Amino acid sequence: MLYKKALEEAHFRISRYIHRTEVLQSSLINTIAGCEVFFKCENFQKMGAFKMRGACNAILQLSEEERANGVITHSSGNMAQAVSLAARSLGVKAYIVMPSNAPEVKKSAVRDYGGEITECIPTIEEREKATNAIIAKTGASFIHPSNDLNVILGQATAAKELLIDYTEIDTVLAPVGGGGLLAGTALACLHRNVTCMGGEPMVEKIIRVEEDEIIHAMRLIWERMKIIIEPSCAVPFAAVLKEPDTFKDKKVGIIITGGNVDLSKLPF
Amino acid sequence: MLYKKALEEAHFRISRYIHRTEVLQSSLINTIAGCEVFFKCENFQKMGAFKMRGACNAILQLSEEERANGVITHSSGNMAQAVSLAARSLGVKAYIVMPSNAPEVKKSAVRDYGGEITECIPTIEEREKATNAIIAKTGASFIHPSNDLNVILGQATAAKELLIDYTEIDTVLAPVGGGGLLAGTALACLHRNVTCMGGEPMVEKIIRVEEDEIIHAMRLIWERMKIIIEPSCAVPFAAVLKEPDTFKDKKVGIIITGGNVDLSKLPF
Repeated sequence: MLYKKALEEAHFRISRYIHRTEVLQSSLINTIAGCEVFFKCENFQKMGAFKMRGACNAILQLSEEERANGVITHSSGNMAQAVSLAARSLGVKAYIVMPSNAPEVKKSAVRDYGGEITECIPTIEEREKATNAIIAKTGASFIHPSNDLNVILGQATAAKELLIDYTEIDTVLAPVGGGGLLAGTALACLHRNVTCMGGEPMVEKIIRVEEDEIIHAMRLIWERMKIIIEPSCAVPFAAVLKEPDTFKDKKVGIIITGGNVDLSKLPF
Repeated sequence: MLYKKALEEAHFRISRYIHRTEVLQSSLINTIAGCEVFFKCENFQKMGAFKMRGACNAILQLSEEERANGVITHSSGNMAQAVSLAARSLGVKAYIVMPSNAPEVKKSAVRDYGGEITECIPTIEEREKATNAIIAKTGASFIHPSNDLNVILGQATAAKELLIDYTEIDTVLAPVGGGGLLAGTALACLHRNVTCMGGEPMVEKIIRVEEDEIIHAMRLIWERMKIIIEPSCAVPFAAVLKEPDTFKDKKVGIIITGGNVDLSKLPF
């Protein structure tokens, strides 16, 4: 299917189950950065992160028979919550395999959203083993957090909304992470004369930033924008601050991926 | 002048200089609170607090001759920043008297907004003495942070916008603080069949909350709404959590007054 049509359809499909999130700006941030920055606030998305988009789209693409058997993922973080809440919104059972050392706050969020947790030894092999055992028993459909076209198309809708709302944007940045968001963002930028930056090989440039630069950028957003964001989504803004010449006078969209932060463990 | 006309005019007067801030909601917060809560996000206001509204309105009401002599306030916090930024937006000189022990971050914010700081010994008497000395020398107009009708009318526009955008709201809460916001909020609620709570005697009810209840409410908003708010504006939400019977199934508007928090000194 043509990617553009697929993206339109994914957006239409999930629109009832997601928030169309705000885009925030700050003149002080623009002055500091030397360019105009548009923050797409997926920290305000349902369950606090963009992953709700991909999880909804993936589950909505299952047949009725498949949905009747439930869905499953293994994750210690946002994808566990996203699949749980998306499944519940659609009346589907969610099995979540979580490493036994996952923070209690994450487990409790998954339970609040109705996910059924199976704990496993915290290695990738054990996660996959536990997942496969549940699939064999229940016939649940596996939702991969990034390596799944329907998940990627769902994540792409964040950048799609941003570029519809602000047609003047010429550059979009997204963190690399598992790759699903970045792939989707690159898709949304295609044929729009918009540069997508963040990782390779689909996108045009990578800027490496150090941990202290990320913490500085995150703190600046907390202090100036008054929004809670995860360290991972401060990475693109750190890149803007690090290479002012690259972004000078541009109109830069940044996907703020999520806001699920443990407030007891802040880096400042 | 009729208060309603005065309020309309204040709103029109300042609208070019302020943000019409977002109203955020969270279904999880609604479930926890047992009522529908509408957060009016003045933490996203220019300089990070509602006080920008009152400062703009007060300065805009000065004559050209008065403006030419500048404005002055004494404050260790948001009003210092609000008067500085509002004055700069209007091309007016701002003198700010600050106690010598005010945090460096506040002083530096005032300077960034173009305010000229005079430090004084941190007592009310010394503040007023320093202020009067500058007034005698410059002829600057004093802007009181709360005891000024033009400031109050400016602050009232936050609740006014909230009640225009969400006509279903039946109760509005605001923190007491210096009283200016609460007085303005009460004004905006008048003749609208909307209950205003928070302090006395203008408003209908006070609910006392303890410090740990405030911190709990603030943390809940940070974690669930993903927005940075000051402890003072968690007070109304703490009251909602404390008296669920009072608010059961109501539609409750809460003015989130500001987001200027020292991230190095969090209570969690």
